[in-house]
Order: sequence, then C-alpha cells, then structure tokens
Amino acid sequence: MIFNLQKKGDKPIYEYLYESIRNDIISGKLKSGDKLPSRRQMALDNGIAEITVANAYAQLVTEGYIESREKSGYFVSPDIDIIPETGTGARKEPTCPVKRYLCKKKDQAASSVINLSNSGLPEETFPFDTWSKLARRILSEDRGECIKAPEVRGLATLRESIAGYLESSRGFRPDPERIIVGPGSEYLCNVLLTLLDSDAGVALEDPGYRNIGRLFEGSGHKCFHIPVDENGVITSSLKGTGIKLIHVSPSHHFPLGCVMSASRRASILAWAEEEKAWIAEDDYDSEFRFEGRPVPPIASYDHARVVYMNTFSRTLSPSIRIAYMVLPEELYAKYMEKFMYQSGSVSTLEQLTLASFISDGFYERHLNRVRNLYKKRKKAIFDIALEGELSEYFELEGDGSGMTFILKSRVHTDESFVDNLRKQRVMLKPLSEYCFNESEFAKDRFVVNFGSVTEEQFKKAAHVMCKALRVK
Amino acid sequence: MIFNLQKKGDKPIYEYLYESIRNDIISGKLKSGDKLPSRRQMALDNGIAEITVANAYAQLVTEGYIESREKSGYFVSPDIDIIPETGTGARKEPTCPVKRYLCKKKDQAASSVINLSNSGLPEETFPFDTWSKLARRILSEDRGECIKAPEVRGLATLRESIAGYLESSRGFRPDPERIIVGPGSEYLCNVLLTLLDSDAGVALEDPGYRNIGRLFEGSGHKCFHIPVDENGVITSSLKGTGIKLIHVSPSHHFPLGCVMSASRRASILAWAEEEKAWIAEDDYDSEFRFEGRPVPPIASYDHARVVYMNTFSRTLSPSIRIAYMVLPEELYAKYMEKFMYQSGSVSTLEQLTLASFISDGFYERHLNRVRNLYKKRKKAIFDIALEGELSEYFELEGDGSGMTFILKSRVHTDESFVDNLRKQRVMLKPLSEYCFNESEFAKDRFVVNFGSVTEEQFKKAAHVMCKALRVK
Repeated sequence: MIFNLQKKGDKPIYEYLYESIRNDIISGKLKSGDKLPSRRQMALDNGIAEITVANAYAQLVTEGYIESREKSGYFVSPDIDIIPETGTGARKEPTCPVKRYLCKKKDQAASSVINLSNSGLPEETFPFDTWSKLARRILSEDRGECIKAPEVRGLATLRESIAGYLESSRGFRPDPERIIVGPGSEYLCNVLLTLLDSDAGVALEDPGYRNIGRLFEGSGHKCFHIPVDENGVITSSLKGTGIKLIHVSPSHHFPLGCVMSASRRASILAWAEEEKAWIAEDDYDSEFRFEGRPVPPIASYDHARVVYMNTFSRTLSPSIRIAYMVLPEELYAKYMEKFMYQSGSVSTLEQLTLASFISDGFYERHLNRVRNLYKKRKKAIFDIALEGELSEYFELEGDGSGMTFILKSRVHTDESFVDNLRKQRVMLKPLSEYCFNESEFAKDRFVVNFGSVTEEQFKKAAHVMCKALRVK
Repeated sequence: MIFNLQKKGDKPIYEYLYESIRNDIISGKLKSGDKLPSRRQMALDNGIAEITVANAYAQLVTEGYIESREKSGYFVSPDIDIIPETGTGARKEPTCPVKRYLCKKKDQAASSVINLSNSGLPEETFPFDTWSKLARRILSEDRGECIKAPEVRGLATLRESIAGYLESSRGFRPDPERIIVGPGSEYLCNVLLTLLDSDAGVALEDPGYRNIGRLFEGSGHKCFHIPVDENGVITSSLKGTGIKLIHVSPSHHFPLGCVMSASRRASILAWAEEEKAWIAEDDYDSEFRFEGRPVPPIASYDHARVVYMNTFSRTLSPSIRIAYMVLPEELYAKYMEKFMYQSGSVSTLEQLTLASFISDGFYERHLNRVRNLYKKRKKAIFDIALEGELSEYFELEGDGSGMTFILKSRVHTDESFVDNLRKQRVMLKPLSEYCFNESEFAKDRFVVNFGSVTEEQFKKAAHVMCKALRVK
C-alpha cells in the first residue's frame, strides 16, 4: 500500500497517512474486514518511520475506522461500510465531520455486534439512581468535605469502607492505613514498580494480562513471563531469576479460570519469603464465584509479602476509575516516603460516593443482584454450550466461576476463523492473544467473556461459530 | 526524646512510636507548637531506622496531631490541646477513637485558623448546585456513555471542550487529539518523565514547586534547579547541562508572581530548539489576572517544543482531580506508543460533567464570578497591606495578578517569627520553603496565598504579624 507523499503539502506525514487511509475506507476502496499492511511493512513501502505509521493507525483505531488485533494486525472495522454524511448548501466544516458521523453509525451498529471479548458489564446493572442520589446528597450536605483535596493514598472514609468490605467478603481485615486507592490497577502497578530497586526483575503469568505485561515491559525492569498450568503459576520457574515482584490471580486465573492450588500457594509464599520478593495478588473476579466455597486470597494468611489488589471496574463499571491495593508494612513505608507529598489521584466526590455506597450496604445488595443475574445467565449460556449445536464443535473449559470461560474447538482453527466471525459481527478472542510466548496449549482455544451478552445473543453467536466451522 | 522500645510488645516499631507520641500529645506532655526532634535525631536517640521515624511522623501528620514544616521540622499542631473523649460504661473500642474525635475538634478549630499558606478556594465558590444538576442529568440521560471505560488520554468530548476553552481564553486552539487528561499535574509530569530517555536531565525553577521537584528528584533523572530573577527563569544556566525537560510558569511565576520577559521567552525557545529539549509550561494561575492585558502562553506561539499544562484544581476545587496537557507532535507519538493500551485515569462521569460544565458556558460564568470575588478581595487585602499597620513592617511585592503575593519584612526575621504566628493560629510560609538552594533573596520574604482568607481574617492576621515583630 503506497501513498504519494508528495501530495501531503504542509501536513505532518502521520496526518496525511491517516487521512489517506480514512478516505480509502470512506470511498469503499478499503472494505470491512480488509487487512492493512503491518506497521513495519507500511513504513518500508512508503519509506517512512514505523512510529509515524503507528501513530496514524492509532488515530484510526481511536476513531473507529480500523481495529487492532494482537498478533494478527490491523483490520478495517466491521461496522464501517457506509457513505459519509452529505449536507446541502455550504456550511462551516466541523472539526471532524466523518468522525461524528461514524460515531453515530457505530452506536447503531454496536447493538448488532455480539462482543464475546469484552469484559464490560451490561448497562442495566449499574445502580444509576442510587449513585445519583448519593452524589447529590454529598454535594448538598457534605460541602466542606467535597471540596477538600484528597489524601494521596485515598480518603480515610473510603479506606475504612474497603477494609470493612474485605473483612465481611474476603475474610481478612487489612489495616485501613495501608490501603492505597488509585484510578485503576495499572496506576497501582505503576506505583508498585516505583517502589522496587531498578535492577529488580518483575514477572507475570503466561497466559495473563497483556496490559500489565506491556506496563512491566515498558518500565525498564527485566520482565519474565511465568507459565501457568491447571494448578496456577508454575512456581519452580521463579527460583534464581532475580524476580522481586510477581503479579498473579490465584483465586481465579485470568483468563484460564483455574484456582491456584494449596501447595502452589505455599510454594510461592516460601519463594517470596526466601527471595524477599513481593506477590501482587490480583483478586479481580472473586466477587463472581457462583458455586462452592469462596477461595480465600493469599493475602488473608500472609501480611508480610503479599500486596492484595482489587478494583471496582469489574463489579460496578469500567467507567469508575477506582481500584485499591493493601501494602505490606515494608512497602507501605517506602510508599509514604515517596508519595506522601503528592496529591490524590481520585476525585473526592467519587471517593465519598463510593464510600457511602459501600458502608450504607448498597454495594453488598448490588453485588447480590448482579451475581444472581450472572449466575442465571451463565447457567443458560453453559446449557447452550454443553447441549446444543455448539457442543459438537467445542468443548467447554472452566470451573464455573467468574465472568470468562474457555471454548476449545474440536477441529483445527486458524486466523481465518476469527476473521470470519468478525465479518459476521461476532467478536471472539483466541487464547493466544493472552499469551506472551508461543503456546501449543493455546491453539484452538478461545476466551469467552459473557458479562455483556444476553442468552439470545450467545445463541446467535454460537450459531455463527458453528456455521463458520462447517464452511471450512 | 527516648521511648522504651521494650514495651512495644508485638507491635511494629513505627506503630509503637506513633502511639507513644500520640499519647504524649493527648496527655498534654507535648503541647501545641512544641517542636519534635528531627527524624534523624529521633532515630539516633532510639537506635532505630530513620524510615521508621518518618513513617510514624507521616501517620501523625495524616491524622492531624503534628504538622510538617519544611526545613524547620515537625511541630505539634496548634489545634490539639484537648482532652480525649471519655464515654461512660464499657463499649467496643472503635477502630480509631481519638482520630475521630480529633477530626471533629479540628473542624471546629479550623475556622479559627487563618491560613495564608493554603492554595485552596473558599467553600462558597464551588458551583455545587450546577455540578450536582449536570451530574444528575448525565446519570439519567447519558447512561450508555456513563458506563463506558474512558480512553487513556481522556474523553473526546472533554478534550474538545478544553480546546474550545483555550481558544477563547488563551488565544490558541490546540488539536484536541493531542490533549492528555489526567488526575492532576503530578500525574501528568510523571507521564512526561516516562517519555524521556533515562539519561535526560530535568529541571525546574528555583524557587518553584517543591512537589514537582520531589517528583523529578525521585524519578532517577538528573535534576537541576534553575534560578529565577524578575524576568523569569535565567535561561543562560541551561546551556550544556543535558537538560531535556524544564518545568516553568512563564505567565505568572510560582510563587514570585513575575512574568517571563519576551527576550527570556525567545531565549528559552531557542535553547529548546537547539537542544531538542521540552518546555513544560505550567499556566496554572492565568485565569486570575485581574488587571492589564492577558499574558499569552509560550505554547501559543510554539507548537513543536512546548507542553502546555493546566489544571482545574485551582479554578474549581483541589478535590476535582482533573488536569491536562497538550503534547507536541513528537511527544504525542511517543505517548500513544507507550500508553494507548492503558486505561483512562479519570472517571467517565466526572469527565462528562466537566465537559458539559465547560461547553454549556458554566465554566466561563464561574470564572467571571470567582475572578470578581478575588479581585475585590485582593484590592481590600492590598489596601490593608499597603496602608495599615502592616506597611510599617512589610513591603508588598507582586504584580497584582494571581492568588499569591510576597511580603518582605523590613526587619530581620528568623524561624521563631513563623512559629510565633503558628501558635496564634496564623499560618504563613516563608519564601525559603519554596527554594531548593540557600538563597539570600528569600530571607525575610513570605508568600501569602489569599485565596481562602477573607478581608477580616487578613486584617486579624496582619495585626498578629505586626505584634509578633514588635515583641521581638
């Protein structure tokens, strides 16, 4: 794909490239599902820097023209085969006319897309009325509190609510002083990284969180990817590596769903003790255990080496940027030394609202409601996956908790399968996208996020998936 | 001050130390205004690590028992000479009884403290009703938008509102794509640091922002403090240093209040161009220029080397954690490369509320209202400072804009002056607390933040200040 850079005029190259591709999409030269050249290839073809291409692609992704699929590349979005808005008469050109138009179109199209790769929650679960009422009350009754700058580690009232919640739901009550509130797990992981020596190795599970992986890799620390089996992360790989921080999800591995076994827990704690390393325990999905006994977090039996982390993004909404971690004493001292003069990172009003939402019992009720909804939804979806047409083509893997499970295809699949689904507006991520290294195990396995799809949508998606495999 | 560490039992040392000092304060053994030993001295006296002391002190500061004054040390808070709450009959010990009690007491006492060192806004300026109404409307009408995860650099709608605001108020319209929204200036400075090479030097003004200084120093980059004169930062000191980022406040120097001269502006831009360095232009106080023509930001005439930064903490409330910066193209490309996969750092609801607050014209009206309030207040306070008793003891320095000015004592002052004021509940910071290096110039100069004091309070404070100098 070669563009005539002579024509760019005064524009920066990235902007010219972005506009050229955008125009090709709008004119229909590039069609839904078409694959774009890799950033490297595009850079070579046009004799420009790869970062310039990356930038143009990023802009196109942001505006919804194209999509990025890890390890597969960039594709024209499925909901884009449309003609740009035309007006009559002359009028002032809006800043970004097509963007506005596409957004509208995307909203319409979004409802017809079945997204099995999205960890979001359905709109109807958010407690809009309660949230609004609490915020309003705080803005009218607690005016003095509302306008105070929040402490860097979070407001005392929120930290105390969180401690109380953990006591009743996770069986341990941390010292509220050592709870650190921040706008998301990534922010908190970043804070953790700054508390380590610069030569400390950092590690995470493979498969696991790609975004945390990127953050670790970009931090300048040596980064390790530790393989996972059905008992959790394989702790024997940790010895002698110089790793000083490992990010794990013992209660419900992301995205495999397995629970870290008791012996692995003992062994990872022994390792941490011996190496003076830290375990960042991400307890992200523990609220959605539908059957059996709750799995206690490692943090509930070790206070010295485990950083407990959780977030409200998964249970309330990803739009609420509030997560927290409980620091062991040694890290807490380092944190205070380094951060005590900084400003808070979450707005006072949202902290007060959430604190009141938790301590007035609304959070508990909300969780019960959502848990019941998901439990029913999961049962219905499992029935479809285990009994219907889908079971001819796929095996289901998962322990029945959390918001994800794995489907393993009984026949061989390649990239074209997921592309094919995408063209039919079913979004499904292969397990390989969560892997840091090539993995035999990941082949023919797919991760299903069922949080934001209804039973009917899943039924439809299942049908599309089966058809796509039959056609092959 | 020696404590019997044998008595600590199972408690961590820092906790024992914290409790011991707290008890001494509550029992009256330590009195308001008493100076505590330095962290180093306390550590030596008790044979413990300095970090342990730092940690105990930090806890006491957080809970309001003591105060930290830079370069002077730690003092028992002025509003603390009280007897702890006593109840009748046995009851369950609350988690932190004294803390709760003190908070109450502090609220009462707070009203009698006149704080000239606080950059906060008075409670009555925050637009509680409008904010509440907008948030409520968004929570009821834009439900779909409300629960979407925000883009890492901020919502498009907020970025466009900010671009429009800058166009009308600061005379330049940045590309909204290159605006990055984050929870505070410190967060954004941290982001900037991660975009630099690890061997890049970083610099800031002396005197200047101590907190940004701490952040720069803690980042691992080589950190320089560049002296300031009445024309702004002395740019000749920049050459050949390896500095790649300098944080400056050209429109209104913090805290001196001077404006960077045209020739210094030209010279800092030439330097940045030559060294391929970045200028982070903090335009924090530009909304509060009461007289004369507005000072255009450097960013309005250079797009390639200047990062424009501003915040809503100063104009709305420090409790709203929303600041922004406009990245030049090259830094923007680096930012997207590094951050595009991360989650947003400011809640969607607050971003939507602020966007609507700006684009529906409320922000403009709010600024006009607050500007008028401060203009009147400033005039009244300047009258007191220039004409009354205060003018016998102090000279006033300041260009009449922004929320701070300098008072220079006509007689020599030492530490005991500020301590004396503190005991009489007047909080005033010497200029030396904003200096990174020893400075002759800073001697006998004090920084007055008048944003949160009334005319009457200032009159009272002026009287206390004069009396304190007479007594000497």
